[in-house]
Amino acid sequence: MLFSIAPPWKGSDIMIKLDFSKGEGLLPAIAQDYKSGKILMLAYINKDSWEKSLETGEVYYWSRSRREIWHKGGTSGHVQKIKEIYADCDNDTVLFKVEQVGGAACHTGYESCFHKRVDSNGKETIVGEKIFDPEKVYKRKT
Amino acid sequence: MLFSIAPPWKGSDIMIKLDFSKGEGLLPAIAQDYKSGKILMLAYINKDSWEKSLETGEVYYWSRSRREIWHKGGTSGHVQKIKEIYADCDNDTVLFKVEQVGGAACHTGYESCFHKRVDSNGKETIVGEKIFDPEKVYKRKT
Repeated sequence: MLFSIAPPWKGSDIMIKLDFSKGEGLLPAIAQDYKSGKILMLAYINKDSWEKSLETGEVYYWSRSRREIWHKGGTSGHVQKIKEIYADCDNDTVLFKVEQVGGAACHTGYESCFHKRVDSNGKETIVGEKIFDPEKVYKRKT
Repeated sequence: MLFSIAPPWKGSDIMIKLDFSKGEGLLPAIAQDYKSGKILMLAYINKDSWEKSLETGEVYYWSRSRREIWHKGGTSGHVQKIKEIYADCDNDTVLFKVEQVGGAACHTGYESCFHKRVDSNGKETIVGEKIFDPEKVYKRKT
Protein backbone atom coordinates (compact mmCIF):
# COMPACT_ATOMS: atom_id res chain seq x y z
CA MET A 1 0.00 0.00 0.00
CA LEU A 2 1.44 3.31 -1.05
CA PHE A 3 1.28 6.50 0.88
CA SER A 4 2.92 9.85 0.72
CA ILE A 5 5.17 11.09 3.44
CA ALA A 6 5.22 14.82 3.78
CA PRO A 7 8.70 16.30 3.87
CA PRO A 8 10.72 17.63 5.47
CA TRP A 9 12.12 14.73 7.38
CA LYS A 10 14.55 16.54 9.62
CA GLY A 11 17.96 14.99 9.81
CA SER A 12 18.02 15.10 13.57
CA ASP A 13 14.72 13.23 13.77
CA ILE A 14 15.90 10.33 11.66
CA MET A 15 16.31 7.39 13.93
CA ILE A 16 17.30 4.93 11.27
CA LYS A 17 21.07 4.84 10.89
CA LEU A 18 22.46 3.92 7.53
CA ASP A 19 25.83 2.22 7.61
CA PHE A 20 27.93 4.69 5.65
CA SER A 21 31.11 2.96 6.82
CA LYS A 22 30.69 0.61 3.88
CA GLY A 23 31.74 1.57 0.37
CA GLU A 24 33.96 4.43 1.55
CA GLY A 25 30.99 6.48 2.65
CA LEU A 26 28.85 5.75 -0.38
CA LEU A 27 25.81 3.50 -0.44
CA PRO A 28 23.80 2.43 -3.48
CA ALA A 29 20.31 3.86 -3.78
CA ILE A 30 17.65 2.48 -6.10
CA ALA A 31 14.92 4.68 -7.52
CA GLN A 32 11.71 2.86 -8.37
CA ASP A 33 8.55 4.32 -9.86
CA TYR A 34 6.07 4.28 -7.00
CA LYS A 35 3.13 3.42 -9.24
CA SER A 36 4.42 1.04 -11.88
CA GLY A 37 7.16 -0.61 -9.83
CA LYS A 38 9.60 -0.04 -12.69
CA ILE A 39 13.20 0.34 -11.58
CA LEU A 40 14.39 3.68 -12.89
CA MET A 41 18.04 3.90 -11.92
CA LEU A 42 20.72 3.17 -9.36
CA ALA A 43 23.11 5.79 -8.10
CA TYR A 44 25.01 6.49 -4.90
CA ILE A 45 24.34 8.55 -1.80
CA ASN A 46 26.63 9.85 0.89
CA LYS A 47 25.49 11.12 4.26
CA ASP A 48 24.98 14.70 3.07
CA SER A 49 22.92 13.72 0.04
CA TRP A 50 20.85 11.35 2.19
CA GLU A 51 20.03 14.13 4.65
CA LYS A 52 19.32 16.56 1.83
CA SER A 53 16.87 14.08 0.31
CA LEU A 54 15.12 13.67 3.64
CA GLU A 55 14.90 17.41 4.20
CA THR A 56 13.58 18.31 0.76
CA GLY A 57 11.53 15.28 -0.25
CA GLU A 58 13.44 15.10 -3.55
CA VAL A 59 16.29 12.73 -4.28
CA TYR A 60 19.88 13.94 -4.05
CA TYR A 61 22.68 11.58 -5.01
CA TRP A 62 26.47 11.75 -4.90
CA SER A 63 28.04 11.95 -8.32
CA ARG A 64 31.10 9.72 -8.34
CA SER A 65 32.40 11.25 -11.57
CA ARG A 66 31.91 14.89 -10.59
CA ARG A 67 32.55 14.25 -6.90
CA GLU A 68 29.71 16.45 -5.77
CA ILE A 69 26.19 16.29 -4.46
CA TRP A 70 23.81 15.97 -7.34
CA HIS A 71 20.20 17.10 -7.21
CA LYS A 72 18.59 14.63 -9.58
CA GLY A 73 16.70 16.65 -12.18
CA GLY A 74 18.34 19.89 -11.15
CA THR A 75 19.38 20.57 -14.76
CA SER A 76 16.65 18.74 -16.68
CA GLY A 77 13.78 19.53 -14.33
CA HIS A 78 13.17 15.78 -14.05
CA VAL A 79 13.31 15.62 -10.27
CA GLN A 80 12.33 12.58 -8.26
CA LYS A 81 9.67 13.28 -5.65
CA ILE A 82 9.97 10.86 -2.78
CA LYS A 83 6.84 8.88 -1.93
CA GLU A 84 8.35 6.19 0.27
CA ILE A 85 11.77 5.22 1.55
CA TYR A 86 13.00 1.79 2.50
CA ALA A 87 16.28 0.61 3.97
CA ASP A 88 17.48 -2.93 3.53
CA CYS A 89 18.20 -5.50 6.22
CA ASP A 90 21.83 -4.38 6.57
CA ASN A 91 21.11 -0.65 6.42
CA ASP A 92 23.54 -0.36 3.54
CA THR A 93 21.18 0.11 0.59
CA VAL A 94 18.27 2.51 0.16
CA LEU A 95 15.17 2.22 -1.98
CA PHE A 96 13.42 5.43 -2.95
CA LYS A 97 9.92 5.00 -4.33
CA VAL A 98 9.43 8.13 -6.37
CA GLU A 99 7.30 10.09 -8.73
CA GLN A 100 9.60 10.71 -11.69
CA VAL A 101 8.76 14.18 -12.98
CA GLY A 102 9.00 14.29 -16.78
CA GLY A 103 8.58 10.54 -17.01
CA ALA A 104 12.21 9.67 -17.65
CA ALA A 105 15.06 9.06 -15.23
CA CYS A 106 17.92 8.26 -17.59
CA HIS A 107 20.19 10.98 -18.92
CA THR A 108 19.94 9.25 -22.30
CA GLY A 109 16.23 10.15 -22.43
CA TYR A 110 14.86 6.70 -21.63
CA GLU A 111 12.37 6.15 -18.85
CA SER A 112 14.76 3.80 -17.07
CA CYS A 113 18.53 3.46 -17.07
CA PHE A 114 17.90 -0.29 -17.34
CA HIS A 115 16.88 -0.21 -20.98
CA LYS A 116 19.46 -2.69 -22.26
CA ARG A 117 18.17 -6.23 -22.13
CA VAL A 118 20.75 -8.99 -22.29
CA ASP A 119 19.28 -11.58 -24.62
CA SER A 120 19.94 -15.27 -24.73
CA ASN A 121 22.27 -14.87 -27.68
CA GLY A 122 24.40 -12.57 -25.55
CA LYS A 123 23.55 -9.44 -27.43
CA GLU A 124 21.94 -6.42 -25.91
CA THR A 125 18.61 -5.13 -27.13
CA ILE A 126 17.42 -1.62 -26.38
CA VAL A 127 13.91 -1.75 -24.96
CA GLY A 128 11.59 1.17 -24.37
CA GLU A 129 11.29 4.48 -26.10
CA LYS A 130 13.10 7.74 -25.65
CA ILE A 131 10.93 10.06 -23.60
CA PHE A 132 13.07 13.12 -24.22
CA ASP A 133 15.94 14.26 -26.41
CA PRO A 134 19.02 14.70 -24.21
CA GLU A 135 20.49 17.31 -26.53
CA LYS A 136 17.49 19.55 -26.05
CA VAL A 137 17.16 18.98 -22.33
CA TYR A 138 20.83 19.31 -21.42
CA LYS A 139 21.68 22.42 -23.36
CA ARG A 140 25.42 22.73 -23.65
CA LYS A 141 26.93 26.14 -23.15
CA THR A 142 29.35 26.96 -25.94
CA MET B 1 6.46 -7.84 -21.56
CA LEU B 2 8.11 -10.70 -19.77
CA PHE B 3 9.67 -13.69 -21.37
CA SER B 4 11.94 -16.49 -20.33
CA ILE B 5 15.43 -16.86 -21.67
CA ALA B 6 16.66 -20.41 -21.66
CA PRO B 7 20.10 -20.80 -20.09
CA PRO B 8 22.91 -21.41 -20.48
CA TRP B 9 24.16 -18.10 -21.73
CA LYS B 10 27.73 -19.02 -22.51
CA GLY B 11 30.29 -16.60 -21.21
CA SER B 12 32.09 -16.46 -24.51
CA ASP B 13 28.89 -15.55 -26.33
CA ILE B 14 28.11 -12.56 -24.16
CA MET B 15 28.65 -9.50 -26.20
CA ILE B 16 27.62 -7.03 -23.57
CA LYS B 17 30.62 -5.92 -21.55
CA LEU B 18 30.02 -4.87 -17.98
CA ASP B 19 32.44 -2.27 -16.66
CA PHE B 20 34.04 -4.18 -13.81
CA SER B 21 36.76 -1.57 -13.53
CA LYS B 22 34.42 0.36 -11.27
CA GLY B 23 34.00 -0.51 -7.61
CA GLU B 24 37.22 -2.52 -7.45
CA GLY B 25 35.79 -5.25 -9.63
CA LEU B 26 32.39 -5.36 -7.95
CA LEU B 27 29.15 -4.08 -9.42
CA PRO B 28 25.78 -3.83 -7.69
CA ALA B 29 23.09 -6.20 -8.89
CA ILE B 30 19.41 -5.78 -8.12
CA ALA B 31 17.08 -8.77 -7.93
CA GLN B 32 13.46 -7.99 -8.75
CA ASP B 33 10.52 -10.39 -8.72
CA TYR B 34 9.70 -10.85 -12.39
CA LYS B 35 5.95 -11.01 -11.80
CA SER B 36 5.19 -8.55 -9.02
CA GLY B 37 7.98 -6.06 -9.72
CA LYS B 38 8.91 -6.11 -6.04
CA ILE B 39 12.57 -5.39 -5.39
CA LEU B 40 13.93 -8.32 -3.46
CA MET B 41 17.53 -7.44 -2.68
CA LEU B 42 20.74 -5.80 -3.80
CA ALA B 43 24.07 -7.55 -3.66
CA TYR B 44 27.33 -7.47 -5.61
CA ILE B 45 28.72 -9.41 -8.53
CA ASN B 46 32.23 -9.84 -9.80
CA LYS B 47 33.16 -11.14 -13.21
CA ASP B 48 33.20 -14.78 -12.14
CA SER B 49 29.81 -14.64 -10.43
CA TRP B 50 28.35 -12.82 -13.45
CA GLU B 51 29.56 -15.51 -15.80
CA LYS B 52 28.38 -18.25 -13.46
CA SER B 53 24.91 -16.67 -13.38
CA LEU B 54 24.82 -16.54 -17.15
CA GLU B 55 25.94 -20.13 -17.50
CA THR B 56 23.52 -21.61 -14.97
CA GLY B 57 20.47 -19.35 -15.19
CA GLU B 58 20.55 -18.88 -11.40
CA VAL B 59 21.98 -15.86 -9.64
CA TYR B 60 25.47 -15.99 -8.15
CA TYR B 61 26.74 -13.00 -6.19
CA TRP B 62 30.04 -12.09 -4.59
CA SER B 63 29.88 -12.07 -0.82
CA ARG B 64 31.85 -9.07 0.43
CA SER B 65 31.91 -10.40 4.00
CA ARG B 66 32.96 -13.95 3.17
CA ARG B 67 34.98 -12.89 0.12
CA GLU B 68 33.73 -15.74 -2.03
CA ILE B 69 31.29 -16.48 -4.79
CA TRP B 70 27.88 -17.03 -3.31
CA HIS B 71 25.21 -19.13 -4.98
CA LYS B 72 22.08 -17.39 -3.77
CA GLY B 73 19.88 -20.03 -2.15
CA GLY B 74 22.66 -22.60 -2.11
CA THR B 75 22.09 -23.19 1.61
CA SER B 76 18.41 -22.35 1.97
CA GLY B 77 17.25 -23.75 -1.35
CA HIS B 78 15.81 -20.33 -2.14
CA VAL B 79 17.57 -19.89 -5.45
CA GLN B 80 16.79 -17.10 -7.90
CA LYS B 81 15.91 -18.36 -11.37
CA ILE B 82 16.75 -15.76 -13.96
CA LYS B 83 13.93 -14.68 -16.25
CA GLU B 84 15.44 -11.52 -17.71
CA ILE B 85 18.64 -9.55 -17.38
CA TYR B 86 19.14 -5.84 -17.91
CA ALA B 87 22.25 -3.70 -17.82
CA ASP B 88 22.05 0.00 -17.14
CA CYS B 89 23.16 2.84 -19.38
CA ASP B 90 26.70 2.84 -17.99
CA ASN B 91 27.10 -0.96 -17.92
CA ASP B 92 27.92 -0.74 -14.24
CA THR B 93 24.73 -2.07 -12.65
CA VAL B 94 22.75 -5.20 -13.41
CA LEU B 95 19.08 -5.96 -12.92
CA PHE B 96 18.08 -9.59 -12.62
CA LYS B 97 14.36 -10.27 -13.00
CA VAL B 98 13.93 -13.54 -11.17
CA GLU B 99 11.62 -16.17 -9.90
CA GLN B 100 12.41 -16.33 -6.19
CA VAL B 101 12.11 -19.97 -5.18
CA GLY B 102 10.64 -20.28 -1.68
CA GLY B 103 9.11 -16.82 -1.93
CA ALA B 104 11.64 -14.99 0.21
CA ALA B 105 14.98 -13.44 -0.70
CA CYS B 106 16.10 -12.04 2.64
CA HIS B 107 18.21 -14.09 5.03
CA THR B 108 15.96 -12.74 7.81
CA GLY B 109 13.02 -14.64 6.31
CA TYR B 110 11.25 -11.67 4.75
CA GLU B 111 10.22 -11.68 1.12
CA SER B 112 12.40 -8.62 0.45
CA CYS B 113 15.50 -7.24 2.11
CA PHE B 114 13.78 -3.85 1.82
CA HIS B 115 11.30 -4.46 4.62
CA LYS B 116 12.20 -1.44 6.74
CA ARG B 117 10.17 1.59 5.80
CA VAL B 118 11.50 4.95 6.91
CA ASP B 119 8.49 6.84 8.17
CA SER B 120 7.96 10.57 8.31
CA ASN B 121 8.74 10.61 12.02
CA GLY B 122 12.13 9.17 11.21
CA LYS B 123 11.47 5.81 12.72
CA GLU B 124 11.63 2.56 10.85
CA THR B 125 8.61 0.31 10.53
CA ILE B 126 8.93 -3.33 9.57
CA VAL B 127 6.55 -4.11 6.73
CA GLY B 128 5.67 -7.50 5.35
CA GLU B 129 5.57 -10.89 6.97
CA LYS B 130 8.24 -13.45 7.60
CA ILE B 131 7.98 -16.15 4.97
CA PHE B 132 10.38 -18.52 6.70
CA ASP B 133 12.14 -18.95 10.02
CA PRO B 134 15.87 -18.36 9.48
CA GLU B 135 16.81 -20.59 12.38
CA LYS B 136 15.11 -23.53 10.76
CA VAL B 137 16.34 -22.82 7.25
CA TYR B 138 19.96 -22.04 8.10
CA LYS B 139 20.70 -24.93 10.39
CA ARG B 140 23.85 -24.19 12.33
CA LYS B 141 26.35 -26.95 12.70
CA THR B 142 27.38 -27.29 16.33
